[in-house]
Amino acid sequence: MTEQLTTDGRVARGDRTRRVVLAKAVDVASVEGLEGLSIGRLAAELSISKSGLIAHFGTKEELQLRTIRAARAIFAQTVIEPALAIPPGMARLRALLDAWVEYSRDRRFPGGCFFARAAHEYAARPGPVRDALAAVDEEWLGLMVEAITQAQDAGEIRPDVDAGLLAFDLVAALDSANLRSLLMGSFDVYDQARRAMDERLSAAAT
Amino acid sequence: MTEQLTTDGRVARGDRTRRVVLAKAVDVASVEGLEGLSIGRLAAELSISKSGLIAHFGTKEELQLRTIRAARAIFAQTVIEPALAIPPGMARLRALLDAWVEYSRDRRFPGGCFFARAAHEYAARPGPVRDALAAVDEEWLGLMVEAITQAQDAGEIRPDVDAGLLAFDLVAALDSANLRSLLMGSFDVYDQARRAMDERLSAAAT
Repeated sequence: MTEQLTTDGRVARGDRTRRVVLAKAVDVASVEGLEGLSIGRLAAELSISKSGLIAHFGTKEELQLRTIRAARAIFAQTVIEPALAIPPGMARLRALLDAWVEYSRDRRFPGGCFFARAAHEYAARPGPVRDALAAVDEEWLGLMVEAITQAQDAGEIRPDVDAGLLAFDLVAALDSANLRSLLMGSFDVYDQARRAMDERLSAAAT
Repeated sequence: MTEQLTTDGRVARGDRTRRVVLAKAVDVASVEGLEGLSIGRLAAELSISKSGLIAHFGTKEELQLRTIRAARAIFAQTVIEPALAIPPGMARLRALLDAWVEYSRDRRFPGGCFFARAAHEYAARPGPVRDALAAVDEEWLGLMVEAITQAQDAGEIRPDVDAGLLAFDLVAALDSANLRSLLMGSFDVYDQARRAMDERLSAAAT
């Protein structure tokens, strides 16, 4: 409160700077990885002083962790929140999958799914960055399991379906389409993912 | 021929150096990415002079491309060749999938699948490195489609099964298990991948 009263302008400017930096950082990291986030490079690209950036973010690792949080917020807003507006059941599950396909295909991040890129970069490198990425992945898989369980409760997916295994199948199809659309430079693989997911959902439906 | 006659010792020593460097490079890249392959760093780790390394590999990009070729040779030897010793059909297809699971789970490369790591690193960065990785991926997917088609010819997979879609499903399950085993630090996800692949193969079998 005291801080807000006395340094209102500085706090607001600081927030704005952090937002600008993180908006740039998520895009850079989706293409070049979290390792590509050097404070010097971001400072140069955004014409901000390097010492100013260090004052805002401290270490490179802190910048990486904040970039993951910023990307998570964008992912939640793009993929999760619209689907959660739909009543629980098969319709919500399908909305989640559709929104993920659009999120990847529309290149909400220029390098495709931010988390696929970053998770592969840090999967074999223990530490806070990997932990943060693993937490987001578990959260996403958990949300898929929950959506499937809700569809079972709604009587739209058979009760004997293993929700964890179905979630694994669906997420694997999404990830594969994301990677191969980038690698092959073609969007056809999204149709393949849709057909694969439709097969899984038809087989699971009551 | 002339070269071999006159510089036999030098050629042999050069081959040995290249082999040592590439054996190190594939391991480093599987954890830290192809971007992590700096000539200076490899020279220091292997106690070879930087100028010597440059003489052998030229640019960093050339080192990256040779590292991809070296990893492909290891992959072929570990996953593909043993399976190709088995007659075409469902048994060969299952052998390929089993060998891939072992290749990933045994950490033939310390960072898990070399190609999953590298493909995500370069998927959104056009150029010769991405092209080389896309070619290996297409080759692998093509081999899966071929193994499925052979199992259809052998009457072990139904003729109406879409070989491309089944290959997509199987490869997606493998990739997902590879990533999540690293990220979560648990091998349980390989069992999930096996169950998913068994379901696909049972549904496709005659």
